[in-house]
Amino acid sequence: MKKLALTLVMLGCAIPAAWTQPKSSTLLVTPAQTLPRELSEQLQAIRDAALSSDYAWQQLAHLTENIGPRPAGSPQAQAASEYVAAELRKLGLDVHLEEATVSHWVRGEEKAELVEFPGQPAQARQKIVLTALSGGAATPAEGITGDVIVVHSFTELTALGHDKVAGRIVLFNVRYDTRKAAAGFAFDAYGEAVVYRAKGGEAVAALGGSAALVRSVGGAEYRLPHTGFSYPVNIPSAALAAEDADLIDHLAAQGRVRMHLTLTPQHLPDTTGFNVVADIKGSEHPEQIVVVSGHLDSWDLGRGAIDDGAGVVISMATAEILQRLHIRPRRTLRVIAWMDEENGGGGHNAYGKAHASEMPNHIAAIESDAGAGHPLGFSVKASTAATASVRSIVEVLQPVGATVIRPTTVSPGSDIEPLVDAGVPGIGIIQDGRKYFDYHHTPADTLDKVDPQELRENAAAMAVMGYALAAMPEQLGR
Amino acid sequence: MKKLALTLVMLGCAIPAAWTQPKSSTLLVTPAQTLPRELSEQLQAIRDAALSSDYAWQQLAHLTENIGPRPAGSPQAQAASEYVAAELRKLGLDVHLEEATVSHWVRGEEKAELVEFPGQPAQARQKIVLTALSGGAATPAEGITGDVIVVHSFTELTALGHDKVAGRIVLFNVRYDTRKAAAGFAFDAYGEAVVYRAKGGEAVAALGGSAALVRSVGGAEYRLPHTGFSYPVNIPSAALAAEDADLIDHLAAQGRVRMHLTLTPQHLPDTTGFNVVADIKGSEHPEQIVVVSGHLDSWDLGRGAIDDGAGVVISMATAEILQRLHIRPRRTLRVIAWMDEENGGGGHNAYGKAHASEMPNHIAAIESDAGAGHPLGFSVKASTAATASVRSIVEVLQPVGATVIRPTTVSPGSDIEPLVDAGVPGIGIIQDGRKYFDYHHTPADTLDKVDPQELRENAAAMAVMGYALAAMPEQLGR
Repeated sequence: MKKLALTLVMLGCAIPAAWTQPKSSTLLVTPAQTLPRELSEQLQAIRDAALSSDYAWQQLAHLTENIGPRPAGSPQAQAASEYVAAELRKLGLDVHLEEATVSHWVRGEEKAELVEFPGQPAQARQKIVLTALSGGAATPAEGITGDVIVVHSFTELTALGHDKVAGRIVLFNVRYDTRKAAAGFAFDAYGEAVVYRAKGGEAVAALGGSAALVRSVGGAEYRLPHTGFSYPVNIPSAALAAEDADLIDHLAAQGRVRMHLTLTPQHLPDTTGFNVVADIKGSEHPEQIVVVSGHLDSWDLGRGAIDDGAGVVISMATAEILQRLHIRPRRTLRVIAWMDEENGGGGHNAYGKAHASEMPNHIAAIESDAGAGHPLGFSVKASTAATASVRSIVEVLQPVGATVIRPTTVSPGSDIEPLVDAGVPGIGIIQDGRKYFDYHHTPADTLDKVDPQELRENAAAMAVMGYALAAMPEQLGR
Repeated sequence: MKKLALTLVMLGCAIPAAWTQPKSSTLLVTPAQTLPRELSEQLQAIRDAALSSDYAWQQLAHLTENIGPRPAGSPQAQAASEYVAAELRKLGLDVHLEEATVSHWVRGEEKAELVEFPGQPAQARQKIVLTALSGGAATPAEGITGDVIVVHSFTELTALGHDKVAGRIVLFNVRYDTRKAAAGFAFDAYGEAVVYRAKGGEAVAALGGSAALVRSVGGAEYRLPHTGFSYPVNIPSAALAAEDADLIDHLAAQGRVRMHLTLTPQHLPDTTGFNVVADIKGSEHPEQIVVVSGHLDSWDLGRGAIDDGAGVVISMATAEILQRLHIRPRRTLRVIAWMDEENGGGGHNAYGKAHASEMPNHIAAIESDAGAGHPLGFSVKASTAATASVRSIVEVLQPVGATVIRPTTVSPGSDIEPLVDAGVPGIGIIQDGRKYFDYHHTPADTLDKVDPQELRENAAAMAVMGYALAAMPEQLGR
């Protein structure tokens, strides 16, 4: 089993720098180095082109509305890889669909009712809104019925012990901290709560529980369940809408609560999916590679707009702008649309293996996987010197506001983790994430959640950073 | 068919005064009359008792969580009437369950998919989130499939004519105006959009359409459908989540869109439901009645917290406070928990008939059916003199903030409409409704949407107004 730090990378979003509190020394801004004048002018032109283009928006509309949800292994995911490849070929890039072994999980029926609860009117049941998590087993088609017990921490579960847990349905009612989120610490709030989604099932199964339920990890108050990755267990596992978790918590404090639960997801054999890998060859050092990327797969409930169609289309926009402006970088600019970030990481694992020998030539890897909110800057996993070089780039993004540089000690994105683990400097765009987890992994992750102007700003941030790293006279150090 | 003004009263919420723009003359505040000192002191004691009590909250928790959704005709609605009656008897009130013929509509299966759309990947369909409206017919169990056309007004539909509508599924994609709502004109926004929910089915059926779909009337962006009343038609009718209405609108602009639609609601025969009618007899004029009220039934998707458990429990709290403080009004204070406000008005119709001869003795009727947001004041349908009397009461609510008096020309609530039509002065509590329609008629109408302090404020507003009208030396004029 992976350690928690690694686990969290797998759970459906990039880890921005807010994750690790900056040490005081990192708050001292290193004076920006000066970029060569020609490069600086190119970056300004790229920035302005991004800010006046709807290319990214039009691509996002196609991915989310014409193709739709894109879970790994689905026809839509396959279609999305082919679509993005074709679009990038249209731009004149050298495009490859690179095979990867990806997960293939298919949601089934999912429903639950309280069949016994304090104060229950005769003949009345109460519907519970929930959605299956990827690691859980299926119930029989007719469902299971069991007593529900509610805990608020792993400690509380452990204290109950096998006698009180065995045969019971266990609900972890742990809140996503909306005050942290509102204050700009949404990813910290997510990290604190998501461990119950990821590992709650294992903990309940170890004590003989019959099913593991978790309060959805997110800040919305609209009775939406949030799906997501969880480690495989041999008991059913689901996330409840916050309102339903609270209902059961309140009722269980008053007396016996019994639930009828039906979840019939199918864990199909792994299948073949495709990363899209598309290059603008470098003019001087074609063997040196700078990656701009997002992930193409999404969860099935929504349409994958903020997670992570946005990351893909701003990477595509980076290529579109360079081609339209006829600007060719010294090094190769590689657009990657990753497959199966959400439920197995098959895409990035395959890339890491297939390109292992080229890792020394990967100069930097950029990923956007924290939505399409206003970009504030970049999280950077790199040496101090390299971080200072990155800092010199963001001055051109001052009109956009994306000027914060936050050093981080872990990969700033889950898909670039194999590269970062191989020593490649990793960079993530830091977006305003205050509302990200209101929509994340829910049916409401749809096109309208993306603001066209903020998407342009993100395209500017990606294009400027990607091109600068591919065009700087000196390659970014390690 | 009722006129639109009446229609809107039926559509699931009170009509606050914001509905009718105040004329300039009404903005001139009539100097408040002075209340007798003893009454003023009683009102202050009542207000403070309400502001320090959780009685209303506890009752709301029971109604929403132990009983749950309470659609007319359901076991829960029956249980709720019996529960409220028992609680009011506990307080020492003279309680009657008064029979009413109520609607009995039961939601069935409801699902929809786009089976053909521009850019469709092979083997891919797109799920559409929707919920049946009460007036629509059922599809066959296996559903129907048809082309979808999108219009944005009745005018646009009419212009298409029979040839283009016949056999098609028609979607009205008319937005609830969130800017109006944010500016304090939520009920105006609702009124402008809800006509499509109420009467869209009739318009489509008249042109031979096969089903009528409407964009949900509400301001949330969380892919929730909003159910509600619609006039009976012989074609299926449903409300789509806003995101799905936009999806279809976008896709239909690009090419052919076909939908598979299954809706199997059951229109069961009318049944017997119960208004709860509970009196604190007046000490001097027991025959004179002041009504405080809310409606006990709710839609089935949520748990009926803001619509309208809140109205019921603040009416109950009015009685609880008077009994606890041993304050007895001159006139009879009557608590009514109405049944079937949402889908037929059976409860208030029955009351109007059963009590027709007593209408001259109904001094005033107060209703709360616009949520549990911070109370701002009252809408008043009464003579100028009576309105001035009402204005004299709200001074004691200054610490609560519920001091606005808005004259209105229509009934300030749908359940008190039969009384208002009979000449009884009608009063509605005006709540901060900016978020009301984000939750209204959705699964997310749950206890957590009510703020305990705001509920106390509403209880204070209802108790002060109810007691004052029942205790004033001079009865409110007509």
